[in-house]
Amino acid sequence: MEYADSGCLPMHMPGHKRRMGEMGNPYFIDLTEIDGFDDLHHARGILLEAQKRAAELYHSEETHYLVNGSTAGILAAVSGCSPFGGRILMARNCHKSAFHGARLRGLRAEYVYPQFLENMGINGAVSAEDVDDLLKQHPDIQFVLITSPTYDGVVSEVGRIAEVVHGYGIPLIVDEAHGAHFPFSDHFPVDSVSAGADVVIHSLHKTLPSLTQTALIHLNGRIIDSFRERIRDFLSVYQTSSPSYVLMASMDSCMDLVLGFGEEFERFHERITKLRERLRAMECLKLLEVPGMDESRILVSAMGSGWSGQQLSEALRLNYRIELEMACSTYVCAITTAADTEEALVRLGDAFLALDRKRTADRRVYGRQEPERDGVCRTAGTFRTKSVCTLLEAGEREQERVPVSEASGRVCGQFVIPYPPGIPLLAPGELVTEHMAEALCRCMKDGSDVYGVREGRIAVIKNQ
Amino acid sequence: MEYADSGCLPMHMPGHKRRMGEMGNPYFIDLTEIDGFDDLHHARGILLEAQKRAAELYHSEETHYLVNGSTAGILAAVSGCSPFGGRILMARNCHKSAFHGARLRGLRAEYVYPQFLENMGINGAVSAEDVDDLLKQHPDIQFVLITSPTYDGVVSEVGRIAEVVHGYGIPLIVDEAHGAHFPFSDHFPVDSVSAGADVVIHSLHKTLPSLTQTALIHLNGRIIDSFRERIRDFLSVYQTSSPSYVLMASMDSCMDLVLGFGEEFERFHERITKLRERLRAMECLKLLEVPGMDESRILVSAMGSGWSGQQLSEALRLNYRIELEMACSTYVCAITTAADTEEALVRLGDAFLALDRKRTADRRVYGRQEPERDGVCRTAGTFRTKSVCTLLEAGEREQERVPVSEASGRVCGQFVIPYPPGIPLLAPGELVTEHMAEALCRCMKDGSDVYGVREGRIAVIKNQ
Repeated sequence: MEYADSGCLPMHMPGHKRRMGEMGNPYFIDLTEIDGFDDLHHARGILLEAQKRAAELYHSEETHYLVNGSTAGILAAVSGCSPFGGRILMARNCHKSAFHGARLRGLRAEYVYPQFLENMGINGAVSAEDVDDLLKQHPDIQFVLITSPTYDGVVSEVGRIAEVVHGYGIPLIVDEAHGAHFPFSDHFPVDSVSAGADVVIHSLHKTLPSLTQTALIHLNGRIIDSFRERIRDFLSVYQTSSPSYVLMASMDSCMDLVLGFGEEFERFHERITKLRERLRAMECLKLLEVPGMDESRILVSAMGSGWSGQQLSEALRLNYRIELEMACSTYVCAITTAADTEEALVRLGDAFLALDRKRTADRRVYGRQEPERDGVCRTAGTFRTKSVCTLLEAGEREQERVPVSEASGRVCGQFVIPYPPGIPLLAPGELVTEHMAEALCRCMKDGSDVYGVREGRIAVIKNQ
Repeated sequence: MEYADSGCLPMHMPGHKRRMGEMGNPYFIDLTEIDGFDDLHHARGILLEAQKRAAELYHSEETHYLVNGSTAGILAAVSGCSPFGGRILMARNCHKSAFHGARLRGLRAEYVYPQFLENMGINGAVSAEDVDDLLKQHPDIQFVLITSPTYDGVVSEVGRIAEVVHGYGIPLIVDEAHGAHFPFSDHFPVDSVSAGADVVIHSLHKTLPSLTQTALIHLNGRIIDSFRERIRDFLSVYQTSSPSYVLMASMDSCMDLVLGFGEEFERFHERITKLRERLRAMECLKLLEVPGMDESRILVSAMGSGWSGQQLSEALRLNYRIELEMACSTYVCAITTAADTEEALVRLGDAFLALDRKRTADRRVYGRQEPERDGVCRTAGTFRTKSVCTLLEAGEREQERVPVSEASGRVCGQFVIPYPPGIPLLAPGELVTEHMAEALCRCMKDGSDVYGVREGRIAVIKNQ
């Protein structure tokens, strides 16, 4: 309540920004599967209708509400599209839930690595050619899974990748958690349902006005027909048997809002276009732009400013009462949505420009005092790793904790994940190379939050 | 909103009964893991404090908030307490999530069957002796899992079972989803944390004033020490990486309310004692009572009244605007909680008594016209079944749908679950006996909702 009253400008999830969405006391509409209220796990009434409406809005054949976030959708898709113990191809920069799914189902994961945009220090797209090469190498691959857009708003060419994948007669799953707004304006990248992906997962709360933990899964096309029942089955496995009517009502009202938005997304795009134009004028800070990216995602690099991303983020919080989505050593990320007013985006632009002027002036006085920062955490997903066993096998082996500096040559026992956005730098079963151990040490020195590291130690599999 | 405004008396979940719990517009407090708001999956700040407070209230060493219902807690407990492919002992009347956990982890499940209370047509307790016998027979069992109380409020002797299980050096997991209110009055059965269970799962929304989909998992004792990290790990697997602050705030405020309740639970018990006394006077309908049961659960049998449970439930809905939790062919179940006022329980009692007088009079006029009803659905969990393969193996085999009447002798491919409460009558991998197929046919004739049956057909494994 204090935060809500603080006047702080939220440049982070959830996408409703606390101003779009009305419900009154949620206890009032919090119900259970009594007569007339249908049942999410076997929808035949009002929930079936609601999901059909969502399907129409997304031009999808089949859409399900998710009350356990995109996590549930990814777990169900990964579980449903392969037999137990099968081989899959996934982008190495997938969200941890994709790895969790592979672990639960004993899958052998081959990885396709996204390009690394060296000059910006962020992950780029996954290339259709790389996918094709790997599918040629491993004809027993059951499905392909990629994340597009990334947390940074970078999209892959889903249409071309879908064509390649379909050429092998297998489904393409796209974790489009951060792109639920894509279908609603031509100014956003093409959405993956339209691009031909077989399974697409959307978080509603990230970029649309819906409560946190709400998401959608879409199933489309003939290739997925033989997996539909299995995916539905796994949705019931990974989601509570008491789904929240508050969350479902929120999804419903989100679909209502979006339906009624009309030109709202166009006006939103105009607002962010103006903001981006202003930010391009910064001298010391730098707006990061990748061709074709989701323009609603604002990335500002602090490299060369003498500040870390964290310092930039803190200055915005303390001096301008603006809370960003993410800060790492080299840059920051702001999430803007249609719920952000003109005024809000002007305030964000003003703050960035003011801080840029300050850093530019300071740099003139004190000179460049750039500490060594390589943003290694952000490169999770591009590091070439080598798995010596499946995720499942690794999770079952006896483990011990060793200092990161001594982990080189050992097999990782638990996920090592810089946060956000939650892409594993190391997954269970992967060999810790010297290069990786060093990178991790730098990561910790950079002040990044790294899950899986406790008191400078990581879990490795015990040598027999 | 229409239902909320209808004046209908809710004798079902959620336990807040829409009158206890205040939040205002939930979008206002719906946040994400920004600075100062901690992270449920790695709690160190406000969420750690909140969970510690819940632990104190439940006299537990370690307690975690669950935002994916008891389902997440059961999946994590089942997954964390056994190696992949291990052997476990579970009560056959467990919630489907327990079966799902066993499936995901490739576990070989041995079943202990609850007693069947013949005269009432409901499942009884699990006996400590039966557990002991099975543990003797299978020394490689990794843990024991039971549900207490049942959906009907029947409790097992958790203390004695815990002693037996601990004698084998393994943990006891208790799904106490329906007993979150137990610790707060001596008039309720002993709670399983106090009784010595190692892992206990509580749904908060079922019997306490908390939003649907909220739950707690408690870990206690030295036996569980070696599993704690694994269970925490699996909690992150089965729960969204974007947990809802609305759900978490609701749990927090539930703990606040309960802390401040003082004598409220005693007064609630007085109210239900009065209600039960009144209901004992019914002639034609019958209050079902099991010694030691949770007295807040009101079971009324319609057997001998000429009505089915469904008809009784419909009469309450249409004539008295009272919505019950559950109705099956032979009886109905009402959930009462501390949120039910004296007035509400008098209204419930008046309605039952009025309908009882009506049925008694009708019976005098028309005589007994009792259709054949054996409430077979409610006996799910007491049917002796035979597994020919693990749940995981069955789920991976090729399947086909055959009419129930022709399923005898085949191996079941998917869960067959009368709903509520969601106890599998048949689990994947179980042999469909002639007796079972007949029972299922009667089930369908009784008008019960049976998941897994579509157009009179169930999934069975294809014969090679």
